[in-house]
Amino acid sequence: MSTTPAYPDFTSDGKFKVIGTRPIRHDGEDKVTGRAVYGADVRPADVLYGKLLRSPHAHALIKRIDTSKAMQLEGVRAVATAEDLVETVDKLSEIGETRVNIREIAANSLASGKVLYKGHAVAAVAAISPHIAEEALELIEVEYEVLPHVVDVLDAMKDDAPLLDENRTTRELGEKTDRKSNIASHNRQEMGDIDAGFAQADEIVEHEFRTATVHQGYIEPHNTTVLWKRDGSITVWVSTQGAFQIREQVSEVLQVPIGKVKVIPCEIGGGFGGKFSIYMEPAAAVMSHKTGHPVKMVMSRAEVFQGSGPAPGGYIKCRMGIKRDGTIVAAQAYLAYEAGAFPGSAVGAGAACIFGPYNIPNVRIDAYDVVVNKPKSTAYRAPGAPNAAHASESVIDALARRIGMDPLQVRRQNAAHEGTRRADGTVYKKIGYEQTIDAARNSEHYRSAKPAGEFVGRGVASGFWFNGGGQSSANIHVQSDGTVSLEEGSADIGGSRAAMAMIVAETLGLSVNQVKPAVVDTDSIGYHDGTGGSRVTYATGHACYLAAEDTKAKMVARAAKQLEVDEGDVEWVEGGQFVSRSDATKKLTFAEVAAQQGSTGGPIEGTGSISASGAGNAFGTHIVDVDVDPDTGKVEILRYTAVQDVGKAIHPSYVEGQIQGGAVQGIGWALMEGYFYNADGGMANPTFLDYRMPTALDLPMIETILVEVPNPASPHGIRGVGEVPLVPPMAAVANAINDAIGERLFDLPMSPDRVMAAILHKKASYGEAAG
Amino acid sequence: MSTTPAYPDFTSDGKFKVIGTRPIRHDGEDKVTGRAVYGADVRPADVLYGKLLRSPHAHALIKRIDTSKAMQLEGVRAVATAEDLVETVDKLSEIGETRVNIREIAANSLASGKVLYKGHAVAAVAAISPHIAEEALELIEVEYEVLPHVVDVLDAMKDDAPLLDENRTTRELGEKTDRKSNIASHNRQEMGDIDAGFAQADEIVEHEFRTATVHQGYIEPHNTTVLWKRDGSITVWVSTQGAFQIREQVSEVLQVPIGKVKVIPCEIGGGFGGKFSIYMEPAAAVMSHKTGHPVKMVMSRAEVFQGSGPAPGGYIKCRMGIKRDGTIVAAQAYLAYEAGAFPGSAVGAGAACIFGPYNIPNVRIDAYDVVVNKPKSTAYRAPGAPNAAHASESVIDALARRIGMDPLQVRRQNAAHEGTRRADGTVYKKIGYEQTIDAARNSEHYRSAKPAGEFVGRGVASGFWFNGGGQSSANIHVQSDGTVSLEEGSADIGGSRAAMAMIVAETLGLSVNQVKPAVVDTDSIGYHDGTGGSRVTYATGHACYLAAEDTKAKMVARAAKQLEVDEGDVEWVEGGQFVSRSDATKKLTFAEVAAQQGSTGGPIEGTGSISASGAGNAFGTHIVDVDVDPDTGKVEILRYTAVQDVGKAIHPSYVEGQIQGGAVQGIGWALMEGYFYNADGGMANPTFLDYRMPTALDLPMIETILVEVPNPASPHGIRGVGEVPLVPPMAAVANAINDAIGERLFDLPMSPDRVMAAILHKKASYGEAAG
Repeated sequence: MSTTPAYPDFTSDGKFKVIGTRPIRHDGEDKVTGRAVYGADVRPADVLYGKLLRSPHAHALIKRIDTSKAMQLEGVRAVATAEDLVETVDKLSEIGETRVNIREIAANSLASGKVLYKGHAVAAVAAISPHIAEEALELIEVEYEVLPHVVDVLDAMKDDAPLLDENRTTRELGEKTDRKSNIASHNRQEMGDIDAGFAQADEIVEHEFRTATVHQGYIEPHNTTVLWKRDGSITVWVSTQGAFQIREQVSEVLQVPIGKVKVIPCEIGGGFGGKFSIYMEPAAAVMSHKTGHPVKMVMSRAEVFQGSGPAPGGYIKCRMGIKRDGTIVAAQAYLAYEAGAFPGSAVGAGAACIFGPYNIPNVRIDAYDVVVNKPKSTAYRAPGAPNAAHASESVIDALARRIGMDPLQVRRQNAAHEGTRRADGTVYKKIGYEQTIDAARNSEHYRSAKPAGEFVGRGVASGFWFNGGGQSSANIHVQSDGTVSLEEGSADIGGSRAAMAMIVAETLGLSVNQVKPAVVDTDSIGYHDGTGGSRVTYATGHACYLAAEDTKAKMVARAAKQLEVDEGDVEWVEGGQFVSRSDATKKLTFAEVAAQQGSTGGPIEGTGSISASGAGNAFGTHIVDVDVDPDTGKVEILRYTAVQDVGKAIHPSYVEGQIQGGAVQGIGWALMEGYFYNADGGMANPTFLDYRMPTALDLPMIETILVEVPNPASPHGIRGVGEVPLVPPMAAVANAINDAIGERLFDLPMSPDRVMAAILHKKASYGEAAG
Repeated sequence: MSTTPAYPDFTSDGKFKVIGTRPIRHDGEDKVTGRAVYGADVRPADVLYGKLLRSPHAHALIKRIDTSKAMQLEGVRAVATAEDLVETVDKLSEIGETRVNIREIAANSLASGKVLYKGHAVAAVAAISPHIAEEALELIEVEYEVLPHVVDVLDAMKDDAPLLDENRTTRELGEKTDRKSNIASHNRQEMGDIDAGFAQADEIVEHEFRTATVHQGYIEPHNTTVLWKRDGSITVWVSTQGAFQIREQVSEVLQVPIGKVKVIPCEIGGGFGGKFSIYMEPAAAVMSHKTGHPVKMVMSRAEVFQGSGPAPGGYIKCRMGIKRDGTIVAAQAYLAYEAGAFPGSAVGAGAACIFGPYNIPNVRIDAYDVVVNKPKSTAYRAPGAPNAAHASESVIDALARRIGMDPLQVRRQNAAHEGTRRADGTVYKKIGYEQTIDAARNSEHYRSAKPAGEFVGRGVASGFWFNGGGQSSANIHVQSDGTVSLEEGSADIGGSRAAMAMIVAETLGLSVNQVKPAVVDTDSIGYHDGTGGSRVTYATGHACYLAAEDTKAKMVARAAKQLEVDEGDVEWVEGGQFVSRSDATKKLTFAEVAAQQGSTGGPIEGTGSISASGAGNAFGTHIVDVDVDPDTGKVEILRYTAVQDVGKAIHPSYVEGQIQGGAVQGIGWALMEGYFYNADGGMANPTFLDYRMPTALDLPMIETILVEVPNPASPHGIRGVGEVPLVPPMAAVANAINDAIGERLFDLPMSPDRVMAAILHKKASYGEAAG
């Protein structure tokens, strides 16, 4: 339940026995021995293998699809096209828009009438082997009428741009308009008087930034196995961050009741926000329905890049004004994000985050969600915020340089704190941004001199992310040997099984290995929001805590029965003893109560359930030292320190791991990553050879400093930690490069060619100045 | 919990919407399409296949086992012998006897020092294919010293019999003695004055009976797949009636804590009591431990017959005395059952059941548990009772003939009822035996004349079985579409998923297909006693009812929140509406409350848990017409009617199915089945070709009459139904044969040769009489 009991003072030091320790994760052995079952390992009896034919064009009308030759190939069992979804999509049209925009999800799964990006799925084949299915794809005839395409956000916003959807009109500040455009929506956040604000400024900096389309780069490609049985029920084995969200989408796209759909979440090899949406499920389901067989589909890496949802690239113009004393008086931003083929980029979140860390009185933010001929964008750790922070944190760095103030001092002086209002109207509760700046300034890294070197630079940047709450539940089963098993439904991406077990162990006075956690399917646990929004340790952890408290209460009742005293007479003493208040010689251990459950009333089970609000916001401040090679433009990361308010680190290693992973992805985004498009609108680098991501060899150890400002809405003070570490790195690196070479880079990635160009530009400027 | 709330009057007619209907079972599609996952379908990655080498001798010392050549065969990965269990067995010796006699289970799994029956497992091999493993068995060298054997219970009781265990001494009436013997124990039940009782009798009948060793004959052989991981945890996929019982045995034999063992119950192709014990798990576990791979073992049919637990054969002498008015005044029995290689036959239960249906003042029963060189016997539907009832119900038939009274009238006049005391001291609560006799007498079958024919006969017999209670639990998860999923832990052998779903549907006002039942693993649900003792519908059904009531209470609270009224103001109206008492216009359906759970506090989950006592005893009365072929001795069943008090039939089809199945197995036991032993103590007929079981072609439709005398300890009046139908058939058939040919058969099976011998004996007697 969502009621807030009086929590024990878990956040004071020394109160914890389990929380804050670093046990080996329960799923560790399975993961390192290859025993863990990932989606690609799923192979139910008589499985068929499905493959998708994808559009070679960025934008085209589908005039005709002929699958007859493919069907004739020996070993082919079924084909699917959008025709197979017509019935349900028609039904969807009748019932209007549903909670997720399900018609677009359907059209993204199997293109209907039109392809909107290169890689858009057009038709599917299921065969007795994946090779036959692939071969059959070549036998499908598709007649296209190629249309002009647009892959750049600013181009797409032009009046004469090719329209992805002739019927789409812009929503302007929440209202429908009749303006046909690729601009799906324009929204504004405003606070104070922006002109008056800038009028007070002593220095104003305005820059334009461009960020590339980047991919989450999860190592495990999308996969799904779907069995649609004759009794109307559907089972889906899938790699996902949100089994219940996949269930909803499958239910809605196929118009099958939720109760008929069971989603079994397999182990997941990374998601980072990219594994909440269905892609291949409709085709697999249709072909399962046609054949009675389960149909398994696994994307190749090229399909992942071209057919699943990357983070949106975009354009941002950011202007900020500061007084000589360091007070930021005004901030304005114009954000236009590439939603991809269908609306729904993270520009709204980007807009809310761009000045999120700061207490600025006069703010205006305009946000444009724009469709382009690229794959539909989706979430990627703190969606929208990294792009935004790249702009604002670069501008703040420039402001600090203008007034000659330490960039952390500028941030500290303008930092948001409890009571600060954001431009979207939110007022912060207890937050720890200032503490991260203080910790960064006091860090050994920041207090040390920059490493020696002509082109060495240091940069800092901060970041904000909301964090989420939502629904979770947990069930505990007490075993006769005094151990417990724990069921919950949050896909374990970052070690959450261990964290959940630790919370239960702490509450019940057990050791962490006496708790056996499991992530179960959608039939076996109450609803869960997904593993995203940095919500799991906070919200599912809270449900686990409630389940443990429920268990404890039931154990107290059983102990009383066993001790033959009144229930009210038994108290639970920390460490896990059940003791009679009236006669302290009467006491039982957890194991003793567990052993007798059969004779005191039957199996003991505890449940916990929550719809959590009050997720504590997250802030981080990063410091980076870079060395720029003046001959090649290659940027080497010499040292990197990430400071973050984590509320309370349940398992510090996994918290640090989240921060390190976020920082590394941010460095990749900063220096290497991006979709390169060729002239016909196709991605030119859809492999890990050409789409460069940082490896361990590219990076130093990422240092982390955990600041713990407890979240009062959590019984343990927990804040989400998984997303905000991806927000500061781009600007931190850009600021460091600027510090190193005296030139600011605005466009991501800051790849060697761009850095080299900046160096040459700088040299040219010197030349000019000298000349 | 085991508290007994005031139950709704569910047992009156017309109160039910779902209970008493006959929906298609939820697991039906999976079972008929082959989609259901049985143990043989389990194939985790890198699985190895294990095979067992079994003793060719009925009794021998193992002088030496050399597995080195087997290990050298290409593809072999591990071997196992009892040596591998020495450490844990030593530990077991230190801690003394555990709850199940685990040392004997270990020694039955891998023979230690001695083999005690032909088929006793001696060594195991795991290889990359089952064929290689089989080949490797032939390379294992075992040197035996063959000992004299004994396979007959009376032979084994003799003073000079070969002893299976030189250290075993008889427990005499509960006390240890120093008498070395194959008689493991002798117990006695006594009531009244047996000599005085017989002195009152006008007629006394005494006969000796022998019953054969018979097998449950489940169509699915034993199978197991065990993975013992490096982190010390063990996963077992197995066909079992009791996942938690398998977990306990694995835990104890391998000395691994319960919390480290997870048992995943696969679908089960029959058990009938025979799938509660581990057989191959220790060998599979040891070989998994050695290799790090999962090890899968599946028995052949011959292994099932020779290496798993059949029902005990035995010897029974039964003597009863009756007065001319039909009052049975005294009953005495001497039962000696063949426990097989280790003690623990069902003779105790046989002793309690032999006169269980009757109210007899003077009773003495002696029960002997005797080891013989046969596989260790185990449970088989109403264990011990069928053998016993064959004796007592034959004697009662003879008594009725002596005094010229209808055999059902004799039973009715002496029938146990509420308040009747059994010789073991138990006093019956509300039972329905008399009602079954009345229903039998009023049946169309009994009221009809016997079919025409010179050698046609009719017989009747009754039976008693205790039925069990014990621990169960259930969890309900409310889905957003207003359906619910249900988890419980009782292996579904006879349609219990459907029955559980029906109970939940009835309680929550849903349709049966809005409830999605699942049988889950031992980590995912509270403790369950096994699917045996006819306990599931009664006890797990009760847990389901409690879970549904818990769900309903939580839904009431949520409905109040949604309706913005006090919780106490909301009442649940039958049919599933939540209505405000103060304002009847304020009301919500189940689905409406379910849809809003996210905004009213998070996922709704209900739990129910019980340690059930008060299982209602079961009684059945069967009527059979037979036609005996005077030239071959073959007995044809012309008509068969089984009447049974079922308390309340949740799903009548499955109740009828249980009764029909029990009757059919009883007919097989009566006419066909038995282990035939050759001179060296080996089973001569270990195949379904030679071990004849009745098929549909051998039998007419079994007619059933359900009598419903509600069990007051069940919220729905449920009694177990699965076991008692196996109790009456043998005597009913024997009595019918006697009626047909004028000769009584005492030994089972009443195979054509024995019937023919009886016919010839009869002719000879006539001849003598005529001569």
